[in-house]
Amino acid sequence: MALLYLSSAERAEVWRPIFDRDLPDVPFIDGEAQVVDAGAVRYIAAWTLPENVLARYPNVEMIVSVGAGVDQFDLAHLPDHVMVARAVTSSIAEMMRDYVVLAVLAMHRELPCYLEQQRSRIWKSRPVALAKNRRVGIMGLGQLGRAALDALRAFGFPLAGWSRSAHQIAGVETFAGKEGLAPFLARTDILVCLLPLTDETCNILDATLFAALPAGACLVHAGRGRQLDHEALLAALDDGRLAAAYLDVTEPEPLPVDHPFWTHPSVVLTPHVATITDFAEGAYSAIASIRGHRAGAAIRGIVDRSQGY
Amino acid sequence: MALLYLSSAERAEVWRPIFDRDLPDVPFIDGEAQVVDAGAVRYIAAWTLPENVLARYPNVEMIVSVGAGVDQFDLAHLPDHVMVARAVTSSIAEMMRDYVVLAVLAMHRELPCYLEQQRSRIWKSRPVALAKNRRVGIMGLGQLGRAALDALRAFGFPLAGWSRSAHQIAGVETFAGKEGLAPFLARTDILVCLLPLTDETCNILDATLFAALPAGACLVHAGRGRQLDHEALLAALDDGRLAAAYLDVTEPEPLPVDHPFWTHPSVVLTPHVATITDFAEGAYSAIASIRGHRAGAAIRGIVDRSQGY
Repeated sequence: MALLYLSSAERAEVWRPIFDRDLPDVPFIDGEAQVVDAGAVRYIAAWTLPENVLARYPNVEMIVSVGAGVDQFDLAHLPDHVMVARAVTSSIAEMMRDYVVLAVLAMHRELPCYLEQQRSRIWKSRPVALAKNRRVGIMGLGQLGRAALDALRAFGFPLAGWSRSAHQIAGVETFAGKEGLAPFLARTDILVCLLPLTDETCNILDATLFAALPAGACLVHAGRGRQLDHEALLAALDDGRLAAAYLDVTEPEPLPVDHPFWTHPSVVLTPHVATITDFAEGAYSAIASIRGHRAGAAIRGIVDRSQGY
Repeated sequence: MALLYLSSAERAEVWRPIFDRDLPDVPFIDGEAQVVDAGAVRYIAAWTLPENVLARYPNVEMIVSVGAGVDQFDLAHLPDHVMVARAVTSSIAEMMRDYVVLAVLAMHRELPCYLEQQRSRIWKSRPVALAKNRRVGIMGLGQLGRAALDALRAFGFPLAGWSRSAHQIAGVETFAGKEGLAPFLARTDILVCLLPLTDETCNILDATLFAALPAGACLVHAGRGRQLDHEALLAALDDGRLAAAYLDVTEPEPLPVDHPFWTHPSVVLTPHVATITDFAEGAYSAIASIRGHRAGAAIRGIVDRSQGY
C-alpha cells in the first residue's frame, strides 16, 4: 500500500521526512508521475483532486485533506466507500480564536469608523460601549467556534451560538436548526460566521438573514466565500441595517480588483488568512487519520459525508 | 461645606441628582458664578482647574478629578495640604482591556499590512504567527495594566510587565525601575504603554527605547501623548526597526491635520477613546472619595502627590 501526495513542493519538503519516519511502511509517493503501481495507492493526500483521479487509482480507501477544509472536494461524486478526513490541528483553533476576537473587538470598538476618520483626518471621539452590553453570536459550534467562544467569554460579551444540531456549551445560549435561526439573530449585535460550506449553508448570509438582525449589527465572516451574498451585504451596509463587516473570505478568491468591498468604508477585508494549516501539524494529523483507518479504530478528522463536513 | 463643580453641563445633568440624593449635606454648586460663600467650598470636582482657583477658595481640602487622569492638574503648584483624588471606575479597566487586546491582536495579526493591501487591492496572504510565539510587554502595572494582562494571558502570549516599583503578578515576568527597562524591552515583540504621565515618563518612548526593542517590534500607546517622541517613532517605523504602531494619544490633541501619523501606512490612530469615564460611575467615585475624606478613612482614588499619580 502507498500514499499518493498531490500538493505543493514546499509542503512536501516538510511532509516527506515526517512520513518516512513515522509511517515507514506506507511509501510516500510525491505526485502521479512517480506512481509505479496504481493499484497500490490506498490513500491520497491533497487540497484539490485532479479530475477523475479515482478512476486511475481504483483501490483508494481514504482521501486526506492537507488543510481543515473538505468543501473543495466534490463529495457528492466520490464513490461511497471512499472515506474523507480533514486535517485537525490545534494551531488552527488558536489562529481562528485570535482572528475572531480581533474582528469582534474591532466591531465592538467601531474600528472601521475610526479608520475612516483617520483617512479624513478627523479627531472625534464616539461613546464607548461595554462588552457586557454587546451581544455576540457565533454560527458554527465545532472546534473553531468553541475556541472563539471560550476566548470571548472572558470579556463579558453575552454569547450565543447557532448550529445545525443542538449543542450545550457553558455560558452560551445555544440555538439549533431552521427554527432557531430567527431568535438567534434577533439577539445578536455582532454575528460571526464560522460555518462549514454545505448545500444548506451556501448563500446563508443573505438579505433575509441581515433583516433578522438588530439594526446596526455587524458581521464577521471567516467561514466560506460562497456563504455570503455580496450584493445583499452591500445593500445592508449602505442602508444602515448593518454598521460594518470584517471579511476573510469571498467568492471568488482573490476578490476581483473592481469589487466594491475593496473600498467600502465599512468593510475590513483580509485575504483568507484567519487560519493557515501548519505543514508539520497537517502531516501529523494525516498520519493519525491513516493509522486510525488501518487499525479499524476512530479516524482523526473523519468527515460525515451525509452531512458534508 | 460645599462642593464646587467645574465641568460640563452634560456631566452636571448626571452628577447633580446623584449628589443631591447620596450626599445631601454637601451642597452641589454648579460653577463659580453660583458661589455665594467662597469660604464654604471644601471640595472641587473638575477635569482642569481655572488659573489661581485655589486663591479664591482658601478652604479647599480636596480636588476630585472627574476622570481617571490627574496629570492635567499642576500638582507641583498645589498647596501641600490639598489632597487630589482620581475617579476610579470599574468600567475604565474593562474599556482599556478591550482596547489593548484589540490593539495587541491587530499588531499580532499584522492588521496595518492588510489594511494597506486592501487600499492597494492586493490579495496576498502572509504567514500566521501563534500567540505563544509573540511576546507582549506592558509598561504600567496599575488597575489598567493588570486588567489587560489578565485578558491577554488566555491567548497564550508570553507576558511581561514593567513599572517603576517591583510587582508580582502570576504568569507575568515583571521588571522594575531603570535597570529593569533594557531586559524588559529586549524580550518584548509588542510593547504596550499604559504609564501615568510623570516627569519620569515624559518622553519615555524615544529613540533609545525603540532601539532596545527587537527588530520588527510593534507599539501600542494608550498612556499619554507627552510620553511619545513623534519624530523618533516615525524614524523607527521608516527604517523598519518598528513594524507598526497603534496610537490612542498624541501631543497635542487633537493631532494637527498636517501630521504624518494621519497617513502613515503603519499607524492606526484613534482619538483618545481607549477609555471614557462614565458620568454616573464618576459621580459615585467622587462621592466615595469625599465620604472617605470626611470620615478620616481611606480615600478612594487618592493620589500620592510625591509620585505624581
